[in-house]
Amino acid sequence: MRILQVGFGTVGQSFAELLSNRRDDLVSRFGINPKVVGIVDSRGGVIDPKGLDLEGVLEVKRKKGTVGAYLDKGLKGLRVAEAIKEVEAEVMVESTPTNVMTGEPGLSNIEAAFKEGLHVVTTNKGPLALALPALAELAEHNRVHFLFSGTVGGGTPILDFGRKCLSTDHILAIKGILNGTSNFILDQMEECGCEYDVALRKAEEQGYSEEDPSLDVDGWDTASKLVIMANWLMGREVTLANVEVKGIREVTREDVRAAARRGRSVKLVGSIADTMEVKPEEVDWTDPMCVRGVMNAVRFTSEFAGDETVAGRGAGGMETASAVLRDILEVRERLARG
Amino acid sequence: MRILQVGFGTVGQSFAELLSNRRDDLVSRFGINPKVVGIVDSRGGVIDPKGLDLEGVLEVKRKKGTVGAYLDKGLKGLRVAEAIKEVEAEVMVESTPTNVMTGEPGLSNIEAAFKEGLHVVTTNKGPLALALPALAELAEHNRVHFLFSGTVGGGTPILDFGRKCLSTDHILAIKGILNGTSNFILDQMEECGCEYDVALRKAEEQGYSEEDPSLDVDGWDTASKLVIMANWLMGREVTLANVEVKGIREVTREDVRAAARRGRSVKLVGSIADTMEVKPEEVDWTDPMCVRGVMNAVRFTSEFAGDETVAGRGAGGMETASAVLRDILEVRERLARG
Repeated sequence: MRILQVGFGTVGQSFAELLSNRRDDLVSRFGINPKVVGIVDSRGGVIDPKGLDLEGVLEVKRKKGTVGAYLDKGLKGLRVAEAIKEVEAEVMVESTPTNVMTGEPGLSNIEAAFKEGLHVVTTNKGPLALALPALAELAEHNRVHFLFSGTVGGGTPILDFGRKCLSTDHILAIKGILNGTSNFILDQMEECGCEYDVALRKAEEQGYSEEDPSLDVDGWDTASKLVIMANWLMGREVTLANVEVKGIREVTREDVRAAARRGRSVKLVGSIADTMEVKPEEVDWTDPMCVRGVMNAVRFTSEFAGDETVAGRGAGGMETASAVLRDILEVRERLARG
Repeated sequence: MRILQVGFGTVGQSFAELLSNRRDDLVSRFGINPKVVGIVDSRGGVIDPKGLDLEGVLEVKRKKGTVGAYLDKGLKGLRVAEAIKEVEAEVMVESTPTNVMTGEPGLSNIEAAFKEGLHVVTTNKGPLALALPALAELAEHNRVHFLFSGTVGGGTPILDFGRKCLSTDHILAIKGILNGTSNFILDQMEECGCEYDVALRKAEEQGYSEEDPSLDVDGWDTASKLVIMANWLMGREVTLANVEVKGIREVTREDVRAAARRGRSVKLVGSIADTMEVKPEEVDWTDPMCVRGVMNAVRFTSEFAGDETVAGRGAGGMETASAVLRDILEVRERLARG
C-alpha cells in the first residue's frame, strides 16, 4: 500500500515512526507492507516512488524544520495539490492543523485527493466539522474510502466502538468529555481552588494549551467531535452550525466549589440527543465519565445494551498515529472485501 | 436463520422477547428473519419447524414453569441431546446456568451441537472457563462458529471492543471489575460502614445474590471472565486452573475505611498480565475503572493506544440477550463472507 502523507507535525511524524518501528510486525501479522512514497509539510515535500527512508526524513524534519530539505529528493515549496497529482499513491494520510472556521487547508487537500481517486485517512477535525455530509458524498461519488478514527478520542477507538460494537443496537444518545485541555483546566480549578485564568496559565505551562486556546476552552473542539459522531454513528447530516456551544471561560471558582459540595465536578460536556450542545455541566464523581486530566470519556446510551462508557487518553502523537494505522488497515480490509 | 434455544431462564426468555419485539427491525435493517424452531428448558421442550409463536411460549413458561407444557407442541421431558438431533437448526443459543466446577450441562450441550454441525452462541461461562481451548479446537474441527459475547460484561461489548477495536494494536494487560454482586457488597460496606455479612444480606434482599453466593464473592465468576478474555483476546490457552483466586469474604469494614482515607475503594479486581489473578485491591476514586453498584469496567493496556476503559452494566436479562443477538448477526455475517 502506497501512502502520501500531507501534514507532518506531531501526528504525521509519530505515524512515520510507527510505520518504521512496526514494519516487521505489520508484514507478519497483517501481511501489509505500507510504503510512504511522499510527504508534504507546510514548506515543502519529499518524494520517492520506491518508498522513503522514514528515519532519514524524520531526522531532516527535526533538524531543518521541513522535509523539503531532504538531500536530493527534497522539493522546497512543493504544494499539496502538485504532490497529489504527481505521486502515485493509494491513500492520503491528512494531518494538517485543525481550523474550524475555514476547514483549510485540510478541506482542499481532501477534496483534491478524492478527485484523484485516493482513499483518505485524516486526523483533522476542521473539514469534518464543517462539511462531513458533503465530504462523505464526494467520497462515495469517487468510490474511495474516507476514514477518521483519530479525530475523536485520539488513540482511544471511540468511533470504532460506536460503529463496530454497537452496530446491532440503536444509539439513542451520546454524552462526552471530549477536550483534554478544558478538562485539565477545570480539574486544576477544583484541586487548587484557583480561578480560571490561573488554571489556564498552568495548562499553558504544561504544554496542554495552544497559543490561541479558543478551540479548546470555547467548546469548538468538543462541538466538532459531536458533529463527527452524529454523522458517523447516528446517521445525522449535521455540521458545526447545528451545535449550541458554550465554553468554560465563565466558570468560576465558586461554581466548582459548589459542585464539589454536591460530590460533583464541573466538566465541559458535549451531548447529542434531540439536539446537540456543548456546555459546562456538573458530573457526579461516581460516574465513570467523570475522568481527570487530559483524558476523554464518552457515554453511549443504546436501546438494548443500556449505557456504556469508553474512556482513554484523548490525544498524544503516538496514540493518534495508532488510530491512523487502524484506519489504513481498515481501508486495506475493505478493498480486499471488494 | 433457524435457532434452537437451550436453557430458558432470564437470558433465554429475554432473547425470545427481543426477537419477538424486533422482528420488523431485524428484517429491515439487517435482512435477517430469525426463527426459533425449538426451545428446551430443564423440564421439557417445544418444537415447531415453521417457527414458534414466541409470545405464546413465553406465556406458557411464565404460567406453567416449563415450555414442555405448550399446547400440542410441548414435549415434557424432552432432552437437549434429542432436540439437537431432531430439530433442524443452524444455531444453538445456549443459556443454561453456569457451573464452574463441572461446566455442565453447558459443556455437553455445546459439544453435542458442534458434532451435529450447529454454530453455537452461549452466555454460559462454565464450559468456557474449564475448557475454552478444547472447545475452540472442536468448533474449528467441525467448521462451526462459536461466539460468547454475553459471557463478559453482560450487554456491554467488552469482548467485541478488545477483538474489533484493538485488533491492530497489541493488548499487553487487562484489569477489570467484573462481578456486579461483589462490587455491590463492597460498595455497601463503604457507604454504610457495615461489615461483610450485613452487606451480603442487603445484596440478597435486593436480588443481586444467588442462594449460594460463592461464584460471585469467592471470585470464580471474575476468574472465569479472565480465562475467556485471555483466550479470546490475547491468544493464551488457559483455563480456570491457571488463575490465582481470592474472594472478598475476608475484607473488613476497617480495610474499606482505610482505603477511603486514601481516596480509594476496595474492589474485587481481576488482572491478566504475566500471570492471572483475582483479589481484593484498592482502586483510586478518580480511576474510570472505579465503578459503583452492579456495573462492570475493564481496562485494556495496549502497546500503541495506551490505556482504555470500557464500563457498563455487567448483567441483566435484556442486556445479555442483546449480546446474543449481536453474536447471531456476527455468525450470519461470517457465513456470508464464506
